[in-house]
Amino acid sequence: MSYDGFFRSELEALRQEGNYRTFAELERHCGDFPNATCHNGPGDVIIWCSNDYLGMGQNAKVLTAMHEALDRSGAGAGGTRNISGNTHDHAMLEAELADLHDKDAALLFTSGYVANWAALGTLASRIPDCVVLSDALNHASMIEGIRHSRAQKIIWKHNDLNDLEARLAELPTGQPKLIAFESVYSMDGDIAPITEICELADRYGAMTYLDEVHAVGLYGPRGAGIAERDGVMDRVTVIEGTLGKAFGVVGGYITGSREMCDFVRSFASGFIFTTALPPSVAAGAAASIRHLKASNAERRRQQANVAEVRRRLDAMGLPHLDNPSHIIPVMVGDPLKCKYISDVLLKDFGIYIQPINYPTVAKGTERLRITPSPVHSTADINHLVHALETLWTRCELARRPVAA
Amino acid sequence: MSYDGFFRSELEALRQEGNYRTFAELERHCGDFPNATCHNGPGDVIIWCSNDYLGMGQNAKVLTAMHEALDRSGAGAGGTRNISGNTHDHAMLEAELADLHDKDAALLFTSGYVANWAALGTLASRIPDCVVLSDALNHASMIEGIRHSRAQKIIWKHNDLNDLEARLAELPTGQPKLIAFESVYSMDGDIAPITEICELADRYGAMTYLDEVHAVGLYGPRGAGIAERDGVMDRVTVIEGTLGKAFGVVGGYITGSREMCDFVRSFASGFIFTTALPPSVAAGAAASIRHLKASNAERRRQQANVAEVRRRLDAMGLPHLDNPSHIIPVMVGDPLKCKYISDVLLKDFGIYIQPINYPTVAKGTERLRITPSPVHSTADINHLVHALETLWTRCELARRPVAA
Repeated sequence: MSYDGFFRSELEALRQEGNYRTFAELERHCGDFPNATCHNGPGDVIIWCSNDYLGMGQNAKVLTAMHEALDRSGAGAGGTRNISGNTHDHAMLEAELADLHDKDAALLFTSGYVANWAALGTLASRIPDCVVLSDALNHASMIEGIRHSRAQKIIWKHNDLNDLEARLAELPTGQPKLIAFESVYSMDGDIAPITEICELADRYGAMTYLDEVHAVGLYGPRGAGIAERDGVMDRVTVIEGTLGKAFGVVGGYITGSREMCDFVRSFASGFIFTTALPPSVAAGAAASIRHLKASNAERRRQQANVAEVRRRLDAMGLPHLDNPSHIIPVMVGDPLKCKYISDVLLKDFGIYIQPINYPTVAKGTERLRITPSPVHSTADINHLVHALETLWTRCELARRPVAA
Repeated sequence: MSYDGFFRSELEALRQEGNYRTFAELERHCGDFPNATCHNGPGDVIIWCSNDYLGMGQNAKVLTAMHEALDRSGAGAGGTRNISGNTHDHAMLEAELADLHDKDAALLFTSGYVANWAALGTLASRIPDCVVLSDALNHASMIEGIRHSRAQKIIWKHNDLNDLEARLAELPTGQPKLIAFESVYSMDGDIAPITEICELADRYGAMTYLDEVHAVGLYGPRGAGIAERDGVMDRVTVIEGTLGKAFGVVGGYITGSREMCDFVRSFASGFIFTTALPPSVAAGAAASIRHLKASNAERRRQQANVAEVRRRLDAMGLPHLDNPSHIIPVMVGDPLKCKYISDVLLKDFGIYIQPINYPTVAKGTERLRITPSPVHSTADINHLVHALETLWTRCELARRPVAA
């Protein structure tokens, strides 16, 4: 068998479908976000699709904490958490995270992906006879974790309480159950009814596992996420979050009871057998959390910019998914067109919005996913709106009716 | 069901077995490795079990590169590699890695664990009818990746060419095959016969997947690992490595043909759906690789220290596994004793060597795993030897015969 020949033909099939991905090679300008250099594109660009939702990656407190930790403790952790890699900075960050979510304990992972994969994989495989009830639109990392556990899995209709309850009601009362879902869904930007899901969980004796990666830092008085905003953090068994989006650094975590965290710490292969995050990353993330616990300025300005971009898109009749979050999906519905629009935005307008194609979203729902942030200026918004207007006209793309 | 009650009882069982892990909370002193503060222990300690094998975590070039990248590009990458998180620093690092291993291409992951899990999982699941031949002592991350792929899996006896060949000979000629193994095995420190495995692979039409995480930076004229030392890098299909051990930072990678790397890049969930490493991490790792490509000083001094520690252990009759690598496993063979020795070393001598217990090693083979590095001084070695001598006498531990 020619292995490289096989790889080539599979890659060629992706290209034919318009789903082959080319990465923009970016260099963000620290202190001047959202401006960046695109090394394999037109040079100067404005980024409109970052998940550094609040621009915390250039926050002075975060950067100072990272510089200081580098000077103090060096580059890497030097080992797994168990073997010489557990630093004071990790312990401080976990305490900060437990406090953020008002939980007993927290446990760090190298990424949000690994947090979901390892925590769900461990809980679902080790709790005897556990069944996982998984929202239909859960993130790949949750799906892979559940799949890895080989536990019984039931998929319920996205955000559909009736379907969830019907599935719960069919299961034996005594069987351990884990309801896995997200708060803000990344690609559609819709939000789960957490309170109602917790009520069903209580009624049917289920644990709840809530992924808040697109919500932490952004919602709630201290930025702990939608569960904080809705006043139900104490009702969720496991809250999972990331340090790589609104907190601006990298890494993932879970929070919950001391026993639950200790259990995952003690049994999760993806936690045990991997080098710990660098102390500087832990220190930077802790500084970011501390800042966003106390400051609403970034959240307020982000929300204002999101509202403004939406208002301007509506005024032009540009089709975007309505949702109650900070994510604005402008729908194109075709992978080649989506890529074409993105290419022209980059080349002719210096606007970088990555086309979102399969497998990140279902085929036929290709989109431009816009994430306005507090670091975008009014001039940036004007420029974006002008570019989209020009492009929609030039390409004769569909619009939706504009209210008179 | 009481979920927390279940967790508590499982944790209690671990405690009873002596396998419950407590993490030392460390703060390494940058510029003064291997010295550190143990925050939940005696204060000042010397670390003797770090996987920052060469002390590159405090290398000035590495730290400068990280500081500069923080100032230039900020804290995090701000997205997945596909969606705004692909930075110039990532591209430069991948080019550096491809050059290190003399391969066409390289692909970065957030950790070595994820590299193994995602690359093996993707290759084994997507190559039709692929069978994986896995060395019996492969690392957890490889085992989980193979398991996740659900491909046919055959375990061959550790480093046993006859057994490997017998397994290969039983398989249909045309069936795709992937031989997965390591170069330096972390816990025993033994080394695989890479050349001979590659010969079997050629004879039976198999791909080879070689984990060099405990070898990169350490072996070969440019620090590319055992395959470089043995002159067979070009014969290995996939070389996997880490940036978190000898290179002193964090992250993992694979190198190989352009098609293979592009295939994994395009299909691996664990690559696609995760936030990219911070630019500062990529920049620091690249600086570390560049330094160790050109400098043999760290490797030479490490090897001298390893030889000296071994010689002194032999002189005392302390039982350690003989092997041709830089890893010195001092065998204890009992989890409670192993933990006790480690505790006393820490408390009475300020020497930190984490006890290695199940599940990292098989029950009954518990050990102290010592990793001498170029940053250990002669005084550090004298202190270690004196402490072990004292402790072995005090505890009446078994010794092996000392040559006259």
